[in-house]
Amino acid sequence: MKDNNHKDNFARKWITYRPEIKLLDCTVRDGGLMNNHNFDDAVIRAVYNACVDAGIDYMEIGYKASGKVFSPSEYGAWKFCNEEDIRRIVGENDTPLKLSAMADTDRVDYKTDILPQKDSVLDLIRVACYIHQIPTAMDIIKDAHDKGYETTINLMAISAVPEHELDQALEIIAGSEVQTIYLVDSFGALYSEQTRYLIRKYLHYAESGNKQVGMHAHNNQQLAFANTIEAIVTGANWVDGSIAGLGRGAGNCATEQLLGFLHNPKFKLRPILECIQNHLEPLRSKLLWGYDIPYLITGFMNQHPRDAMKFNAGENRGNLTKFYDMIMEED
Amino acid sequence: MKDNNHKDNFARKWITYRPEIKLLDCTVRDGGLMNNHNFDDAVIRAVYNACVDAGIDYMEIGYKASGKVFSPSEYGAWKFCNEEDIRRIVGENDTPLKLSAMADTDRVDYKTDILPQKDSVLDLIRVACYIHQIPTAMDIIKDAHDKGYETTINLMAISAVPEHELDQALEIIAGSEVQTIYLVDSFGALYSEQTRYLIRKYLHYAESGNKQVGMHAHNNQQLAFANTIEAIVTGANWVDGSIAGLGRGAGNCATEQLLGFLHNPKFKLRPILECIQNHLEPLRSKLLWGYDIPYLITGFMNQHPRDAMKFNAGENRGNLTKFYDMIMEED
Repeated sequence: MKDNNHKDNFARKWITYRPEIKLLDCTVRDGGLMNNHNFDDAVIRAVYNACVDAGIDYMEIGYKASGKVFSPSEYGAWKFCNEEDIRRIVGENDTPLKLSAMADTDRVDYKTDILPQKDSVLDLIRVACYIHQIPTAMDIIKDAHDKGYETTINLMAISAVPEHELDQALEIIAGSEVQTIYLVDSFGALYSEQTRYLIRKYLHYAESGNKQVGMHAHNNQQLAFANTIEAIVTGANWVDGSIAGLGRGAGNCATEQLLGFLHNPKFKLRPILECIQNHLEPLRSKLLWGYDIPYLITGFMNQHPRDAMKFNAGENRGNLTKFYDMIMEED
Repeated sequence: MKDNNHKDNFARKWITYRPEIKLLDCTVRDGGLMNNHNFDDAVIRAVYNACVDAGIDYMEIGYKASGKVFSPSEYGAWKFCNEEDIRRIVGENDTPLKLSAMADTDRVDYKTDILPQKDSVLDLIRVACYIHQIPTAMDIIKDAHDKGYETTINLMAISAVPEHELDQALEIIAGSEVQTIYLVDSFGALYSEQTRYLIRKYLHYAESGNKQVGMHAHNNQQLAFANTIEAIVTGANWVDGSIAGLGRGAGNCATEQLLGFLHNPKFKLRPILECIQNHLEPLRSKLLWGYDIPYLITGFMNQHPRDAMKFNAGENRGNLTKFYDMIMEED
């Protein structure tokens, strides 16, 4: 064989690990989209303990949503992440695990609801935005940064954004205070070559601003794990997982998949398995997350999974041809 | 951005299709490993009709197993694929769909049980073998080729084979009559870079013998679809899928996933969805195939899934820590 070089690279890549890779667990935050964040404290505590014991770097515990936009009678505590609610679970969080909350642009009263970091157990604010919300998102980033937080920006739904607009957005982001720029595959629509292309683009802008790149994948086509691996191999150093893949619709790349792949000895798999078996699998029949063919269809059509989620929550669940015909008519 | 070249390749690859790609559906053959090939005729007929209507290239209907090795009282008809059983379903198979059966080396009386092609509705004999069975496999290939069949070789469990032995095996295969050499990820252990590396190796040998390369993936780590895409992008022109991913243990790359990815207009998705909904999903609670964490664990440990299959069929199913502890003790 002539490709000895290739062989050497291959061995180096797969036998070692990159210590700079950060693993963020978003089980509670993304999974909360399936039950309006109405989790029992026991579940939140189990996920927190599992993350600590497994050596995860960050745990995202929920949203910092505005009580004026979302009614606290309809949504659970983890939609709002008040400081006292978080401390009820984590105390002073005297562990190596860092805590994160997501601020959804235009749905957060960030000036008042995000406390100065010295008064909070949160370490990281992740700002989610669509491309038309970039100016407000930049203000949330600046506010959180000035308050003392680490920050990321999670630019959503980019598989449906014109490329020159994405380039402009990334240029603006590269000039901001943000530390990590996430590639977010909101529709679970990306294939590995597209992931590689986009991560390279994100790295190009990120490196000009001395920032890192992250990957947040959805499992609509059962490609969340593969795309996250692709992102890592291409150079992303932040990756999102969720335990048992719990997350909106088809869910996310599973934390347990990533622990099998990342060979960093600080990570432990067993606490995650225990959490799945005792706390998350019992929720499956009610929350109904995970790969399913309606998500595959919206995924390869590059559509928001909302139609698939609505269909799967209704009485026609499993009637695949009915869903297919409905989507084809709409399209 | 400086990578306009990359951008052009990217658009070409994802908007067009490669007409030379052949899709082989192995639902009944690989799925039969979960029920000793005891399918009702209605299921076989439904899969056959779905394959015809969906424009699939080949359907693999079962094994040509020896009645002296496997008892016909324990195994269904599709373990043996007698000509009269196949014809009961397909008649003269007056369709563009070609039919295949698998010959498992050392478990087939190929000289007597594989008829001359002119007397059979089968078009293709696929020879499965482990590396130590290469001499016998080569004789089955020659026999089938001389009888008038198309042939493939499916070299199994290669993720646990020393590389210099694999190279020797591929060199022998390259000199044989076989038309397509399959990369088979028996343990669902391969990551995309490993798939790319191995497909390049297989192509190197295949091209010296004017042969094609194929990919048969298992979904232990939820990477079957991603690895099959990687194989296609790297140059494999034969790919295996199974409807609803039905197959041994974690199952295979799903035919419906491939139909969403391969943009050849001859392929139709709806007949496959109909078959899943009416014929395959009703079997799930009994056959219990599909991605599950015990398979993830044997996958990333590069082990045969037999321990996971046995565990999942028993009363401890779902007790993930028990499975983990058992595997760690054995290892």
